[in-house]
Amino acid sequence: MSENPDEGRLAGWEARTEWPLTGLAVAFLVAYAWQVLGTADSPAVRWWLEVWLWVVWGVFAVDYLIRLGLARRKWRFVWRHLFDLVVVALPMVRQLRALRLVTVFKVINRRVGASLRGQVGIYVGGTTLMVAFGAALAVLDAERSDPNATITPFGDALWWTLTTISTVGYGDRYPVTTEGRLVAGALMVGGIALLGVVTGVIASWFVEKIAGAEASIEASTKAEVQALREEIAQLRADLRPRAQDSEPR
Amino acid sequence: MSENPDEGRLAGWEARTEWPLTGLAVAFLVAYAWQVLGTADSPAVRWWLEVWLWVVWGVFAVDYLIRLGLARRKWRFVWRHLFDLVVVALPMVRQLRALRLVTVFKVINRRVGASLRGQVGIYVGGTTLMVAFGAALAVLDAERSDPNATITPFGDALWWTLTTISTVGYGDRYPVTTEGRLVAGALMVGGIALLGVVTGVIASWFVEKIAGAEASIEASTKAEVQALREEIAQLRADLRPRAQDSEPR
Amino acid sequence: MSENPDEGRLAGWEARTEWPLTGLAVAFLVAYAWQVLGTADSPAVRWWLEVWLWVVWGVFAVDYLIRLGLARRKWRFVWRHLFDLVVVALPMVRQLRALRLVTVFKVINRRVGASLRGQVGIYVGGTTLMVAFGAALAVLDAERSDPNATITPFGDALWWTLTTISTVGYGDRYPVTTEGRLVAGALMVGGIALLGVVTGVIASWFVEKIAGAEASIEASTKAEVQALREEIAQLRADLRPRAQDSEPR
Amino acid sequence: MSENPDEGRLAGWEARTEWPLTGLAVAFLVAYAWQVLGTADSPAVRWWLEVWLWVVWGVFAVDYLIRLGLARRKWRFVWRHLFDLVVVALPMVRQLRALRLVTVFKVINRRVGASLRGQVGIYVGGTTLMVAFGAALAVLDAERSDPNATITPFGDALWWTLTTISTVGYGDRYPVTTEGRLVAGALMVGGIALLGVVTGVIASWFVEKIAGAEASIEASTKAEVQALREEIAQLRADLRPRAQDSEPR
Repeated sequence: MSENPDEGRLAGWEARTEWPLTGLAVAFLVAYAWQVLGTADSPAVRWWLEVWLWVVWGVFAVDYLIRLGLARRKWRFVWRHLFDLVVVALPMVRQLRALRLVTVFKVINRRVGASLRGQVGIYVGGTTLMVAFGAALAVLDAERSDPNATITPFGDALWWTLTTISTVGYGDRYPVTTEGRLVAGALMVGGIALLGVVTGVIASWFVEKIAGAEASIEASTKAEVQALREEIAQLRADLRPRAQDSEPR
Repeated sequence: MSENPDEGRLAGWEARTEWPLTGLAVAFLVAYAWQVLGTADSPAVRWWLEVWLWVVWGVFAVDYLIRLGLARRKWRFVWRHLFDLVVVALPMVRQLRALRLVTVFKVINRRVGASLRGQVGIYVGGTTLMVAFGAALAVLDAERSDPNATITPFGDALWWTLTTISTVGYGDRYPVTTEGRLVAGALMVGGIALLGVVTGVIASWFVEKIAGAEASIEASTKAEVQALREEIAQLRADLRPRAQDSEPR
Repeated sequence: MSENPDEGRLAGWEARTEWPLTGLAVAFLVAYAWQVLGTADSPAVRWWLEVWLWVVWGVFAVDYLIRLGLARRKWRFVWRHLFDLVVVALPMVRQLRALRLVTVFKVINRRVGASLRGQVGIYVGGTTLMVAFGAALAVLDAERSDPNATITPFGDALWWTLTTISTVGYGDRYPVTTEGRLVAGALMVGGIALLGVVTGVIASWFVEKIAGAEASIEASTKAEVQALREEIAQLRADLRPRAQDSEPR
Repeated sequence: MSENPDEGRLAGWEARTEWPLTGLAVAFLVAYAWQVLGTADSPAVRWWLEVWLWVVWGVFAVDYLIRLGLARRKWRFVWRHLFDLVVVALPMVRQLRALRLVTVFKVINRRVGASLRGQVGIYVGGTTLMVAFGAALAVLDAERSDPNATITPFGDALWWTLTTISTVGYGDRYPVTTEGRLVAGALMVGGIALLGVVTGVIASWFVEKIAGAEASIEASTKAEVQALREEIAQLRADLRPRAQDSEPR
C-alpha cells in the first residue's frame, strides 16, 4: 500500500526474497501445526521441530536487519514496518509465533497493487485460509493448558476461528487466556479487513460500471477532437496550394 | 464476474441451459425440503424423493462435463469453476447437497452484469431468501440426530440462519456437528458477501451522484468541442468560395 | 431509489401526503408506546388507544388504495410497493404494527435523492433512532407474555435493540417468540442497511476527493478547448476583412 | 466533514486550540485511568485527581462557550456541534466523562480532509486505540460496583471492548448497568464507523485504480487538444504573412 519509490536497493532485495520468504513462512506453518497437533511425538522429534522454528525465526530476524541496513531513511523504515519489528522482537511469546505468518500477507500485498481484481480475490481467499489455519493452531496451543478452556480439540478451534473472522461470534466457545485473546484480537482485525476488502471489491465493481459509461462519453469527446484535428489539417491543405499559387504572382 | 469472451460455444450452452437449470435447482430445493421436513412419509415416498435428488445431481454432473467438453482452455475452465467441481464431486456428503443450490446464485450472477442496480437488489434479495431457506433445511438435517443439538425444530433453524447471515450471532443456538458447521461456514461467507453487495450498491449510488456532476462537466466539454467544429466548418465554408473565386482569375 | 417519472398523478399525491403521513406515523408511534408501556392504564384509555391505532391503520390502508388507483401501471405499482402491501394486509399480526413505522423511512428516502450527504447523515440517524425505539416497543410487547422471555423491562428491550442493530449480538438477551423473532429479523435487515449507508457515505467521501482531482484535469481540458475556440474566432476575424477587401476588387 | 468556510474567526480559534486541547484530552485520559485503576491510592491523591478531572472539564466547557461566541450563526453552530453540547452539559454522569475523549476524534477529523489515505489509517488506528482504552476504563468504572457484573478486572474490560468494537460480541462478558450499556452503545457506534472507514479506504483504493485508467484517457484528450491548438497557431502563422503581403499590394 505504501511503497517507497526512491528505495531502490531495498525494493530489489524485497523482490528477490519475496518467494523464498513465502516458502519459509509456509514451512514454518507446517512445522508449527506439527508441533501443536502432534502431541504424541517422541522428544527427539519435538526437539528438532523446536530448532527448526527457531531457525526460521532467525532468518526472519536477519531479513529485517538486512532490510533496515539497505533502507536509506532508517527511521522511516522502522516506522513503516512497525509490525515486522513487533514480530521479530517478540519471539519469546511462544503463542505469537504463528502471527509471523502474517508476513505472508505482507508479501502478497506488495504484488496486488498492479494486478486485477480477480487476482485480489484469489490472494485474499488464500491468505484468509492460511491466517485462519494459523490462528486456529495458535489459539489451541494457548488455550488447551487452561482448565476453563472451551476451545479444546482442533476441530473446535477451527470452528471458533470461523465464527470470529466472520464477526458472528456465537459465544459457544471463546478464549480465556491472555495469549488466546491476543490471537482473537488479530483475527478480529483480520475479519474487519476481510469485510472491507470484499465490500471494496464489490463496490468498485459497481462503480466501474458507472465509470465505464462515463469513459465512453470521454472516448467520444476524444474522437470528436481527433475528427476536428483532421478537419483543420484538411483546411491547411486547402489553403497551402493557394498560398503557393499566389506567391509566384 | 469473470466471463471468457472467446469461449463462444461454452457461452451459448450456458445461455441455453440457464433457465432449465434454475428450474431444476428450485425443484431440487422443494424435494430436499420435503425429505427433511416430511419425517412421517411412507418408505415409498422417501425412496422416490431419494431417486429424484440423485437424478438432479446427475443432471448437474452431466452439465459440468458438457461444459468442460465445450471449453477450449480446459484447465482454465476447471480453475475458474472450482466451486462447481466441489459441488459435483462431493455428493456423498449428504448434508452438502443443499449447497448445490448455490448454483442458482451463479446462474443469476451471470445475468446481473449488464443490468441495473435495482435488479441487483431483487436478485440478491431472492437469492438470499433461497440460500437461507436451503441452509435452514441443511442444518436441521445435520443437527437433529445429535443429542446436544440446539437447532431442533425448523422454526429454530430458520431463526438461527437469520442470526448467522446477518453476522449478529446471539449464540442461543449454534451447530455442534461437523456438517452443521460446514453449513454455518457457507452461510457466514454468504453473510459477508451480502454485506458487501448491500454496501457496494449504496456506495455506488452515492458515487454516481458525484460522477453525475462530473459527467455534466464532460458533457459540456463535448458540447464545446462540437461548437468548435462547427466554427471551423464555417471558416472553411468562408474560405472555399474565395478559393474558387481566385481560381478563374 | 426507484421513482417512476411518468407517474405524474401518483407523484403529486405522494408529495402532498408526505408530511401528513409522517406526522401520523409519529402519532402512531406515540400511541403504540403508550399502549405497550402504560400497563396500569384504565380500560377506557386502553380502548381509545386501540381505536386510534386502528384509525391510523385505516388511513394507511386508504392511502395505499388511492395510490394504487392513481398509478397507471397497476401491477408495476404493486410489485414496487410490496412492502406497503404487506404492512397494510397484515394488521392482524398485532406485534407487526410497529413496523408500519418503516413507512417513515420510505417517506424520508424519497427526499434524500437530491440532497447532500450531510443531510443523509441526519435522516439516517433520525430514522435509525425511531426504528430502534419502535422495535424495542414491539419486541417487549411480543416477548413479555412468554415465561422464558429474557427481554422483559423496556430498558432491556432498548439494550437488546442496540446489540442487534449493531450486529454485535452478545446473546445475553434474545427473542424466543415468533413475533419477537420477526421484529429481530426486520432489525437485522435495518442493521445491515445502516452499515451499508455509513460505509457508502464514507467511501463516497474518499472517492469524491479522488474525483475532485480528476475533475480539475477535466476543467483544465475545458479551459483549453475554450481558449482554442477564441483562437479560431480570432483567426476568422483576421481572415474576414481580407475576404471583404478582396470582394470589391 | 462539515466545515463552515465563512466562519473565519471560529476556524482560526479551532486551529490555534487544536493541539492544546488534544494534549489536555490525553492528560484527562491518563488521570481518569489512574482514578479507575489506582484503587489503593490515598484520599489526598484521589482528591487531586478529582480536582484535575473537573478542571479539564471546565476548560472544555469554556472552549465550547468561546466557540459559540465566535460563531456567526449561533443556532447552526449548536446544531452542528450537538455532540459537544452533550459532552459539556452532562458532566454529572461520571461514567460518561471518558467519552469526552471523543473530542480527540473530532480534532483529528478536521485535519484529515486534506491529507493522504495513509495518514487516515494512522489517525484512525490511533484514535481507535485511544477510544478503546477509554471505553475499557469507563465500563470497568461503571460495572465493578454491580454484584452481577462480568466485566470485572481491567484485562477483561479490554477484552470486552475488543469483542464489542469488532462487532463480534461473544457474549461471555456484557454490561449489566445502564452506564455500562451507554458506554457499549458509544463503542458500537464507533465499531460501525470503524468498519465504514476501513471499507471506505479500501473501496476508494480500488476505485482510484479505475479512476487512474480513466484519467489517462482524459490526459490524452488534453494532449490532443493542445496539439490541435498548436496546429491552429501554425495555420494562423501561415496565413499572417500572406495577409501582410496582400496589404501593400
